[in-house]
Amino acid sequence: MYFQALFIFSLLIISSSQAAVLDFCVGDLSLPDGPGGYACKKPSKVTSDDFVFSGLATPVKLIPLIKAAVTPAFAPQFPGLNGLGISMARLDLAIGGVIPMHTHPGASEVLYVVQGEICAGFISSSDNKVFFKTLKQGDIMVFPQGLLHFQINSGKTSALAIVSFSSPTPGLQITDFALFANDLPTELVAATTFLDAALIKKLKGVLGGTN
Amino acid sequence: MYFQALFIFSLLIISSSQAAVLDFCVGDLSLPDGPGGYACKKPSKVTSDDFVFSGLATPVKLIPLIKAAVTPAFAPQFPGLNGLGISMARLDLAIGGVIPMHTHPGASEVLYVVQGEICAGFISSSDNKVFFKTLKQGDIMVFPQGLLHFQINSGKTSALAIVSFSSPTPGLQITDFALFANDLPTELVAATTFLDAALIKKLKGVLGGTN
Amino acid sequence: MYFQALFIFSLLIISSSQAAVLDFCVGDLSLPDGPGGYACKKPSKVTSDDFVFSGLATPVKLIPLIKAAVTPAFAPQFPGLNGLGISMARLDLAIGGVIPMHTHPGASEVLYVVQGEICAGFISSSDNKVFFKTLKQGDIMVFPQGLLHFQINSGKTSALAIVSFSSPTPGLQITDFALFANDLPTELVAATTFLDAALIKKLKGVLGGTN
Amino acid sequence: MYFQALFIFSLLIISSSQAAVLDFCVGDLSLPDGPGGYACKKPSKVTSDDFVFSGLATPVKLIPLIKAAVTPAFAPQFPGLNGLGISMARLDLAIGGVIPMHTHPGASEVLYVVQGEICAGFISSSDNKVFFKTLKQGDIMVFPQGLLHFQINSGKTSALAIVSFSSPTPGLQITDFALFANDLPTELVAATTFLDAALIKKLKGVLGGTN
Amino acid sequence: MYFQALFIFSLLIISSSQAAVLDFCVGDLSLPDGPGGYACKKPSKVTSDDFVFSGLATPVKLIPLIKAAVTPAFAPQFPGLNGLGISMARLDLAIGGVIPMHTHPGASEVLYVVQGEICAGFISSSDNKVFFKTLKQGDIMVFPQGLLHFQINSGKTSALAIVSFSSPTPGLQITDFALFANDLPTELVAATTFLDAALIKKLKGVLGGTN
Amino acid sequence: MYFQALFIFSLLIISSSQAAVLDFCVGDLSLPDGPGGYACKKPSKVTSDDFVFSGLATPVKLIPLIKAAVTPAFAPQFPGLNGLGISMARLDLAIGGVIPMHTHPGASEVLYVVQGEICAGFISSSDNKVFFKTLKQGDIMVFPQGLLHFQINSGKTSALAIVSFSSPTPGLQITDFALFANDLPTELVAATTFLDAALIKKLKGVLGGTN
Repeated sequence: MYFQALFIFSLLIISSSQAAVLDFCVGDLSLPDGPGGYACKKPSKVTSDDFVFSGLATPVKLIPLIKAAVTPAFAPQFPGLNGLGISMARLDLAIGGVIPMHTHPGASEVLYVVQGEICAGFISSSDNKVFFKTLKQGDIMVFPQGLLHFQINSGKTSALAIVSFSSPTPGLQITDFALFANDLPTELVAATTFLDAALIKKLKGVLGGTN
Repeated sequence: MYFQALFIFSLLIISSSQAAVLDFCVGDLSLPDGPGGYACKKPSKVTSDDFVFSGLATPVKLIPLIKAAVTPAFAPQFPGLNGLGISMARLDLAIGGVIPMHTHPGASEVLYVVQGEICAGFISSSDNKVFFKTLKQGDIMVFPQGLLHFQINSGKTSALAIVSFSSPTPGLQITDFALFANDLPTELVAATTFLDAALIKKLKGVLGGTN
Repeated sequence: MYFQALFIFSLLIISSSQAAVLDFCVGDLSLPDGPGGYACKKPSKVTSDDFVFSGLATPVKLIPLIKAAVTPAFAPQFPGLNGLGISMARLDLAIGGVIPMHTHPGASEVLYVVQGEICAGFISSSDNKVFFKTLKQGDIMVFPQGLLHFQINSGKTSALAIVSFSSPTPGLQITDFALFANDLPTELVAATTFLDAALIKKLKGVLGGTN
Repeated sequence: MYFQALFIFSLLIISSSQAAVLDFCVGDLSLPDGPGGYACKKPSKVTSDDFVFSGLATPVKLIPLIKAAVTPAFAPQFPGLNGLGISMARLDLAIGGVIPMHTHPGASEVLYVVQGEICAGFISSSDNKVFFKTLKQGDIMVFPQGLLHFQINSGKTSALAIVSFSSPTPGLQITDFALFANDLPTELVAATTFLDAALIKKLKGVLGGTN
Repeated sequence: MYFQALFIFSLLIISSSQAAVLDFCVGDLSLPDGPGGYACKKPSKVTSDDFVFSGLATPVKLIPLIKAAVTPAFAPQFPGLNGLGISMARLDLAIGGVIPMHTHPGASEVLYVVQGEICAGFISSSDNKVFFKTLKQGDIMVFPQGLLHFQINSGKTSALAIVSFSSPTPGLQITDFALFANDLPTELVAATTFLDAALIKKLKGVLGGTN
Repeated sequence: MYFQALFIFSLLIISSSQAAVLDFCVGDLSLPDGPGGYACKKPSKVTSDDFVFSGLATPVKLIPLIKAAVTPAFAPQFPGLNGLGISMARLDLAIGGVIPMHTHPGASEVLYVVQGEICAGFISSSDNKVFFKTLKQGDIMVFPQGLLHFQINSGKTSALAIVSFSSPTPGLQITDFALFANDLPTELVAATTFLDAALIKKLKGVLGGTN
């Protein structure tokens, strides 16, 4: 006989009704959340579908003027990631497309070039040194936590990249949007960026900022 | 004038020679490592190349009998990831290819299907419930930390997936290899797996285990 | 006078009604949990009994065919551990008893032999090297996070061990149960373990698996 | 034109209703809390006022006999700190004032002398070595996590210090209060402190302890 | 045939010379340490003995006047624990023995009574509430991180307990020793404890303190 | 007798030569560092001076054109903070002084107004909402991790603030410097910021950038 023993089924007295904190915590977005993420969906209601997300299979519509789009699979979109220290996103860049300077306040990022050619880089905080390189299909690049970085389609075809983050909720702060698509009074933007008021007002107009 | 001020260049007195602990810590594999990872390469020797890895651009040779291969980009292969809480790997599965049951002792995983169709799943620890699904191109699936999981090419073409981990050193323990490609005496393997000795000896023979 | 001062009692204005997040967070299993554990019981209802657990004082009934039992004191059984980064369990092994190959997905373990003699070991992930040793009364052994390990009564009397974990919810995945006490179709188990279908069906029959 | 593009406003599909887990988690003290802190206030109700606290601007009334006071700005007082790994407090010490020996169970501390002169120190656990020094205005001192420490006004004017902690809920355990302002039976206090019962009863009387 | 495939041995290209950061990091006490623990011993020199510690099998000599002893198995004594988030210690208490009031600055603790009867308790920081109980053989009790606690042999036989900590380096600060076995000037001890100078000098004399 | 026992001095066998990983890890900047910080100075060479820093007692010279200065007390300047999860800095703002838009990639911040009046704010990443307020002496404000924020002297006197961070190495990335005081080619800066090349070249000239 290949198996030498007749087990009793309930070897251990960990009831499945209490399983949530053991293996996973699929987020229940209808409950109050906490600093560590969403509250857990009841284990009895969790199915395979909770761990699979198809929202990256097709790109969202490109933003015409950056000729690019970011499609996140963070915990709010994919609650199966809740509490697991990881997430993904899809970058689509048409010819000439750009993901402008941005940061992820709470995560490091690794980018994988699925298709095309991408020039990507980040800026160190201590000495403003720029680390950048042109990546070809299959190359990966890491962007350390919280630093300004960018991606540009530097090839002659559209480009596709998958990026992964060291947090289920990495955040995304695009510098232009943060500075100009807000209601911070123009004089405060001017004082803190050293750009002049006329330019700021113009950018606010374009990006939907006020004041 | 667009910029209202003439800055002095050295606004802050953080010397770049001490920058390593601030932004990143590219691993220096020649120095002793610690529980948190490798010691840091001197910042003055760090270049853009340290943050880019091309080892996933081409698959390693497939293992004939599983018709598959795993190509890691963990901190030992890609020291730029050191200390950053993230890593990647590439999975190649020919038609009929399989990544056998395995765990990553220290990380959760997200898989992105670059090409083909993959049936993937994991087994919960509390009630041995299996969560599995057939994934198509562009789908992603999450595998919570430390749980047994697998990937099978369930399509009619070869498949390619990129997986990302919540640690720069996720580890990889393939159950068959752990159990049979070792020198643990057959009677101890038998006692702890309830497989019979003859089968274990056969498997040890195939996989290179001894005793 | 030994004490030089007449204190006013309420030196600090931290009201006890807000104390829960300060010192401890006894789990309230009736509330939704989160990635970090259970919600906290109201401090005013917490008593000394919440921090004491007697469930390890007597073993559960042994599982006849492994001649052993595991009695957990994890957060679901002992909610006073919630959020505190530690838990315990009791291992009872009759003569010839075995705790089969298993992992704890989210914790390292230290074992203390209270009585008897135990042969214990773990398998490293990088090179399938086995570290094992026969432990006598009073010996302790550490099992690094997430790695396959086992314990066998190698002595001539029954054995008792206390194990401690680096998490209040370490999880426990016994490989045989994970692989065969589930409803994963036999052909998928076969494909991912390289055991043949007949054996798998037999094991599923013994362990209560289906499909 | 300074800005080359007309952005569409909703570049990314992260709805603001799900923003709480991304950037901050202002504590809602009316909801159940968890091991990681309070549940999050709904983002739509968060205002600038949630991130500002004026409770340190004026000292609380000094405790006459220590001629000092501690005013905390921990998460219970300042819920905007919830989940952010930091907090503050204000120390007021009249001439001759003292913050008695105490610990913060869950945090390291840095003290900044705003005004006056303070003699401060801590005691290492491994060899009972005392590290102490007289600090002048503008000096800072660090007290490693969990160690006994104290602050004394050693100058000829009143002193003011701001202290910061590496946790939003550092806790504060003043040794004299812990030992004597409780209901632990005198014989147990005596057995565990080696002070005699008469002295303990006297101190309990002064500090409000019983038994 | 039970095993359907002939594997090639080197499935994965993770060389064992780089294994240290993957599975474990046995401490090498001869190298400089860091905030996270000791540097790692070279994997090629690690053996099973590195993961086993026999120093708790026999008690150290009891301290006559507390009729008790603490035998630590922390990372400095048992370097196999380095980086793994857990450690142990053995408590021996003769009849009437006491482990005096103390804290562990960086860890929570769980105590298991191997033999005898122990009265144990801790003091909360927020309201000086004491949680204590008499534990019998097999009972466990948890002491939350950083709080003052004690153990007393309350039975009629000697007692033995195994305690486990949520850190490989929990630290141990016995209040009496911290306050009186040091060289802090008596007037500073008096000022910060409100005990009088004569008593402090007497205690310093007994415990080996100076000044 | 007040103290009932004659202790033996060496109650515990934790030798002080191994104390470094227990209580603190003063950074030794001459040794290789790791992801968690600097290697530890030998405990026998650590003195009280290692835990005290006077570099914030006097401001550095103000930068004329921002009329402000930041004086850091991070681990590189104050190695006693190494590994302790906290640091400080001093902000000096003359009348009209400004700390321009910046981020700390790895830390949250709390600001305390020592003197004067400061208008401070931050920008959320999810919806570009600005949270800002005018702070008076004694007010504190929290800036969540990684988000763009600023401080402006909005009063009629010079202002002084002490800021504290949730990391010993919070980093500091001033947006203007990161974007213009670097050697990133102007066309890449233009592509990723949507500012025009002429303005970028001018700013690069002012700030010392090239290319």
